[in-house]
Amino acid sequence: MGNYTIIKKSKKSSARCGKLKTFHGIINTPFFMPIATKGVVKTLSVEDLKNLKARIILSNTYHLMLKPGIDLIKKAGGLHKFMNWLGPILTDSGGFQVFSLSKIRKIKERGVMFNSIIDGKKYFLTPEKAIKIQEDLGSDIVMALDECTSYPCDYEYAKKSIELTFRWAKRCKEAKEDKSHIFCGQASPFCPKGSPQKVRDKKQLLFGITQGSVYKDLRIKSAKQIVSLDFDGYALGGLAVGEPAKKMLKVLDYTIPLLPQNKPHYLMGVGRPEQIIEAVKRGIDMFDCVIPTREARHNRLYLWQGKADITKKNFYKVINIASSKFKADLLPINQGMLKKYSKAYLYHLFKTKEPLALRLATLNNLEFYLNLMLEIRRAIKRGMI
Amino acid sequence: MGNYTIIKKSKKSSARCGKLKTFHGIINTPFFMPIATKGVVKTLSVEDLKNLKARIILSNTYHLMLKPGIDLIKKAGGLHKFMNWLGPILTDSGGFQVFSLSKIRKIKERGVMFNSIIDGKKYFLTPEKAIKIQEDLGSDIVMALDECTSYPCDYEYAKKSIELTFRWAKRCKEAKEDKSHIFCGQASPFCPKGSPQKVRDKKQLLFGITQGSVYKDLRIKSAKQIVSLDFDGYALGGLAVGEPAKKMLKVLDYTIPLLPQNKPHYLMGVGRPEQIIEAVKRGIDMFDCVIPTREARHNRLYLWQGKADITKKNFYKVINIASSKFKADLLPINQGMLKKYSKAYLYHLFKTKEPLALRLATLNNLEFYLNLMLEIRRAIKRGMI
Repeated sequence: MGNYTIIKKSKKSSARCGKLKTFHGIINTPFFMPIATKGVVKTLSVEDLKNLKARIILSNTYHLMLKPGIDLIKKAGGLHKFMNWLGPILTDSGGFQVFSLSKIRKIKERGVMFNSIIDGKKYFLTPEKAIKIQEDLGSDIVMALDECTSYPCDYEYAKKSIELTFRWAKRCKEAKEDKSHIFCGQASPFCPKGSPQKVRDKKQLLFGITQGSVYKDLRIKSAKQIVSLDFDGYALGGLAVGEPAKKMLKVLDYTIPLLPQNKPHYLMGVGRPEQIIEAVKRGIDMFDCVIPTREARHNRLYLWQGKADITKKNFYKVINIASSKFKADLLPINQGMLKKYSKAYLYHLFKTKEPLALRLATLNNLEFYLNLMLEIRRAIKRGMI
Repeated sequence: MGNYTIIKKSKKSSARCGKLKTFHGIINTPFFMPIATKGVVKTLSVEDLKNLKARIILSNTYHLMLKPGIDLIKKAGGLHKFMNWLGPILTDSGGFQVFSLSKIRKIKERGVMFNSIIDGKKYFLTPEKAIKIQEDLGSDIVMALDECTSYPCDYEYAKKSIELTFRWAKRCKEAKEDKSHIFCGQASPFCPKGSPQKVRDKKQLLFGITQGSVYKDLRIKSAKQIVSLDFDGYALGGLAVGEPAKKMLKVLDYTIPLLPQNKPHYLMGVGRPEQIIEAVKRGIDMFDCVIPTREARHNRLYLWQGKADITKKNFYKVINIASSKFKADLLPINQGMLKKYSKAYLYHLFKTKEPLALRLATLNNLEFYLNLMLEIRRAIKRGMI
């Protein structure tokens, strides 16, 4: 028995509904992971996340490594306990930020050397270290270390890069297999009561990441390589890095059929609501993106156009709540968690730079995204997409 | 029957426990009011305030007048509905900020002209306007417009000032009496279900403010003048403006005996925990202060020293949570709402400038202040202070 079970397959598309078992609970797929970059979903407490019915969050190894440091989190009993979040956590390998944030970095066969964006301190991240760190964090889903190419990316570079990603993936797999039982033995002090019992397989899940930029032959080769290593799930990396939306969907079209259907498929860093729907139709089960949280902090609210209906064209809108047209709009922000707060009040909070503004906007956008996923799951079950 | 009922008088001091009835609920005295300057307790949602068991908040007329403007709040159905807070609200008259914030102001017999700190726009605040504004806001407790003298204050100036405050107080009283029935007739659209029924007297309460700087004869005269006008409660203004703590307590010593014992006594802008206790012993029932919320935003946490016991010397401490000594302190922040968050986690949030840091610190400090008042009420009931 694997950790992923499909409960409904669409007849109209490659979309599917399933259940993913993790150490800290079962999650219905397709799902969206709010981002807790530094061990906190910006502006929100874990009580807020519970009220939002968020099931899983993503946290960034790179940032946690720099601050507060992995040793402290390990000492705290893992990331769950440190941040007081008792649901599942996916951590990335740190690779993406090494490639996107650090100005100074050197890729070697053994791993990647980079300088901290905080104090310039040197770090050396290897596949084995990326695994060890995520074991110390106690993540439910561990990501392999890959090289994430930027866009556009030279063909020759991308070709060499997928080979490195393959070799690193193998090392991650080996490093993880050595350690999984040690982790199991910890009996999870940070586990919610009863939850470990519900989950039969207590080990951390390890996901492999496929690369290859937007080159079909490289994507296919990388997918085959990574799949040959038999991971618990498969991610598509190196997308949503600036390439046109159509190119990204094409990559999904020819890559996903190569992934095992009985394993979860994760599209990293995506995306806007319509992109998520298109990806789900192609067989993606997992998403993460900064859009809902980051845009909230820039006054941008995601709202349904009328009743929630993802099969409608233009089913949502994005408004700038700091625009003067909302100054005297006394209608509710939304029909959900914020139905008792008016748009005029949120406008006022933004205009007076009250910290609550950022939180209410974040709640609105995450509620929208989580409801979007709920609507997607419903639509699949009802045979609508 | 008045709105204030004493339920226990101390035999050791002038302290008393009572119940104050307002339009939006009954509040046990002595109590502390968290400050919602611009219609929000900085960093907190009303759900947070409910979780804190805050019973009443204070909001600043001056700030609301400038932004978002009283007309909008009136259109929203009052401040309760605008900010989604259904408990009692006390609003100040705006006078204090006119005197402390506006650089340009002119005091005339009719009222005070000032320029907005936001855009320099001219405003003219009269006693009648201060009342009208607070009626539009729908506050449960309305404060009369006074002149708040700064410290030190010239004797001759203070002497003239209490006379102006007296004349303004009379005008406030008259303006309010004309309007109270109109207010009653509104049937409170922003009232929680059932709550107005519990409160027999639906009218807004109007409090007079006594002044006189630190001059005994002026304080006595002002108290007698204001008391002669028969308000629903009495405030001591012009204190906690920089005078030594001992001088403030002296003012309380000779002023409070002149106030009706069956009316609530409010010490505006106070203060530190030990000041609150000393004031309670002298017969004060109501407090407000920016200390818990403002200091929270500057990393300063109020914590009990061991078990909560206000009769102990040094019963509390203030720590700087951003100090490196808390970097690896994995003990809980407190034993209350934040018992599942460690000091090291809050340190991390402050160091990474996460907005949640300010909120957790604010929750800690307000919980401390509200528990302080609970302990004070208990101590009075048990004959300990």
